[in-house]
Amino acid sequence: MSQETQKSTQAEKNAHMEKIVSLCKRRGFIFQSAELYGGLNGCWDYGPLGAELKRNLKDYWWRVNIQERDDIVGLDGSILTHQEVLKASGHVGGFSDPMVDCKACKARFRADNLDTMQCKEKPSCKPGEGPKCELTEPREFNLMFQTRMGASSDDNDPASIAYLRPETAQSIFVQYKNVVDSSRVKVPFGIAQIGKSFRNEINPRNYTFRSREFEQMEIEYFCRPEDGMRLTDEWLELRLRFYENIGIPREKLHILDVPDGERAFYSKKTYDIEYEFPFGIQELEGVAYRTDYDLGVHQKASGRPLEYFDEVTKEKFLPHVVEPSAGCDRTVLALLCEAFEEETVTDDKGKEEIRTVLRFHPRMAPVKCGIFPLLKNKPELVEKAKAVRDTLRPFMNVFYDEGGAIGRRYRRQDEIGTPYGVTIDFDTLGEGDGELKDTVTLRERDTMKQERIAIGDLLSFLLEKLR
Amino acid sequence: MSQETQKSTQAEKNAHMEKIVSLCKRRGFIFQSAELYGGLNGCWDYGPLGAELKRNLKDYWWRVNIQERDDIVGLDGSILTHQEVLKASGHVGGFSDPMVDCKACKARFRADNLDTMQCKEKPSCKPGEGPKCELTEPREFNLMFQTRMGASSDDNDPASIAYLRPETAQSIFVQYKNVVDSSRVKVPFGIAQIGKSFRNEINPRNYTFRSREFEQMEIEYFCRPEDGMRLTDEWLELRLRFYENIGIPREKLHILDVPDGERAFYSKKTYDIEYEFPFGIQELEGVAYRTDYDLGVHQKASGRPLEYFDEVTKEKFLPHVVEPSAGCDRTVLALLCEAFEEETVTDDKGKEEIRTVLRFHPRMAPVKCGIFPLLKNKPELVEKAKAVRDTLRPFMNVFYDEGGAIGRRYRRQDEIGTPYGVTIDFDTLGEGDGELKDTVTLRERDTMKQERIAIGDLLSFLLEKLR
Repeated sequence: MSQETQKSTQAEKNAHMEKIVSLCKRRGFIFQSAELYGGLNGCWDYGPLGAELKRNLKDYWWRVNIQERDDIVGLDGSILTHQEVLKASGHVGGFSDPMVDCKACKARFRADNLDTMQCKEKPSCKPGEGPKCELTEPREFNLMFQTRMGASSDDNDPASIAYLRPETAQSIFVQYKNVVDSSRVKVPFGIAQIGKSFRNEINPRNYTFRSREFEQMEIEYFCRPEDGMRLTDEWLELRLRFYENIGIPREKLHILDVPDGERAFYSKKTYDIEYEFPFGIQELEGVAYRTDYDLGVHQKASGRPLEYFDEVTKEKFLPHVVEPSAGCDRTVLALLCEAFEEETVTDDKGKEEIRTVLRFHPRMAPVKCGIFPLLKNKPELVEKAKAVRDTLRPFMNVFYDEGGAIGRRYRRQDEIGTPYGVTIDFDTLGEGDGELKDTVTLRERDTMKQERIAIGDLLSFLLEKLR
Repeated sequence: MSQETQKSTQAEKNAHMEKIVSLCKRRGFIFQSAELYGGLNGCWDYGPLGAELKRNLKDYWWRVNIQERDDIVGLDGSILTHQEVLKASGHVGGFSDPMVDCKACKARFRADNLDTMQCKEKPSCKPGEGPKCELTEPREFNLMFQTRMGASSDDNDPASIAYLRPETAQSIFVQYKNVVDSSRVKVPFGIAQIGKSFRNEINPRNYTFRSREFEQMEIEYFCRPEDGMRLTDEWLELRLRFYENIGIPREKLHILDVPDGERAFYSKKTYDIEYEFPFGIQELEGVAYRTDYDLGVHQKASGRPLEYFDEVTKEKFLPHVVEPSAGCDRTVLALLCEAFEEETVTDDKGKEEIRTVLRFHPRMAPVKCGIFPLLKNKPELVEKAKAVRDTLRPFMNVFYDEGGAIGRRYRRQDEIGTPYGVTIDFDTLGEGDGELKDTVTLRERDTMKQERIAIGDLLSFLLEKLR
């Protein structure tokens, strides 16, 4: 491909991304945090639909990894983290990015990522591209958010320092012994956690992809040392299957076998699972074989034995750890990017129009079913439609809509990815063809095909599709 | 009641509370955060069972308040909060507790709560009880956790200050306009959120009750000004019903109609819903009529109009707000306190023993059903039991246990509150009475009664009980 074609393709991708961002704001998926006050850089709020989408993702992850397995249990640790935990893990000393200042505009950039940065004073100049910008020497910038805790927090007492966790993993390692003692788990077993983590990124970018506050879905899977490499490969496969099961096709995923020298120093093997975002191929999840590094450092720093006693072999050993660590917000963004489509369709009158549709997997869709009385000024239709709504609502998110032409109501649901729409019409009431009494029109989002279904069969039909 | 009797009753209650705390650690409900390093005061980690219990509570709250209603939508805002948001809301200036130092032991105490505090130097002396301890003058101590954000965060740049939110409510107010513009909600409507909040309590206490990191379940319900008082009463009733539906009986709840002068200055009416904890009657939730205070201050500070336009009456007005704000961790603690019981039972051989049981409502219980093959060394029993497990597991948390006498396995599940136990025996295999083939013994936790049920009926029976 010529450089010119590549550029125009990227311009198209950027325009595509713009449309997704715009839809997310307009329909209430994602808002900038504190937008009212100019925004808080690198922080995002999920609106009504985004909150549901994210919940569906987290719930499915929890169900697949904890509920449906015998060997993994959950944990929900605090965000505020004791400084000794992060000293032992190496984060206090070493969790940093190199940073440079532009001497012209005073802005700060990551020294290892200069070519995406733009000097504000000299728009024609990209830092690092030559002598146009003068940059300071790189210096290390710790990415952790620090705070002060306790009654002496305003006295600059070093003992009052605490951090917001930079990863959920550490609370799992620190509680590993308590879990072993209380849960009757046996190696190999996992501890899983979903929760917020925080990194003071120098340059947050790519919408919600690289943000300062983000949610992780992490498993630390404890095993015998000799099983670590094999389990890393097995987890890679399991995690790829997970993404397929939420609607991200395998061909859009790339596996990076991180080479020697580029992995974290304690990792013997790391796979990055990457997705083709419009802004580039970027990491969704890392599957890392962390060896016994973490338990080892905590055992040493705390002075408490963290060895596991195998009742069968009578051996005592420090388990090794395989960590599938997924970014929740990144996956939500991948779901949005993958689902978004504009297509040209022909309406009843033969007129062409653009249909915007989010082709979410039904299990991820924020709203599962739209419910529409054909006309809002016919009390019997409205009453019947509300009755249908009430039978479905205890089991799933539904959206009742009586406003506007039925075609417009379908389009509004297409745009937020609702997989099914149900219309209550005169046939439903038994006023047309008597045989159609108590049936409704069920419309499928992707094919736009419509069929009749008995109201009594609706719930089980939908539940089957949504699982 | 004499003072002596009161004291002994309180001593009993303290012992009762100790047992709950001990069970919570031993069985993996709650661990102290960073216990390995001596603990982080006021922070707690939920272990495998605690994480499930908390999830059940949050899911039920979300289902009842958002999924099953047309008029409330969800939000999931960032924890890191723009300082202008909290300046406008009054938290930067005024969210503080008065604090005093004991001149003998140097410890700090809340000046408004001295009688529960103990001087470390003079154990016989309670601060505030007279001249035995000398205290400093009270000074105001802001309860918010502060941090620094962005590339200039290490330069003491005032612009880099950000806070951990002290309540989830503010992100709702700040995003209220975006939600109105994107979600087609009409007054009266609510925005609901579940998430972590942070307050640097001077003296965290009563286990997880008053902690520095905690989770809230808040609804801001926007309405016409004339409806505020009525809706506050209605929400009080709805919320009381919620607690009954999760297993907290009405008679253990107290309603405090907070009198004039003790409410927040912006509130026209506040009800506290309190529960009889072993350590005292304490607040679970506040239902507060906040008027238009919050939208008013944000409209003023941001300079952006936040009025609502009523399309029917063609009026423009600032909505008033009723806020049911529940403490998630407190409710979890109330569930544990309410559920815990030790009872004397007689075993098969007529021997008395103490049975510890958590009488959770089935919908809250972390594990819904225990599954037990009668004997673990009979492969047909084990295989059948695992088949039963696999039919239930996609729909609920189950626990498969083949270790030890069946009575002991029941007891282990009683202690964590599992409402049902299923035993697969030789009758199940059709080896005893042929008519019992493919039936199992279903044991109910509270009554300990056992009945036979067909495997084919088990899932629907359990799902009915768990909803």
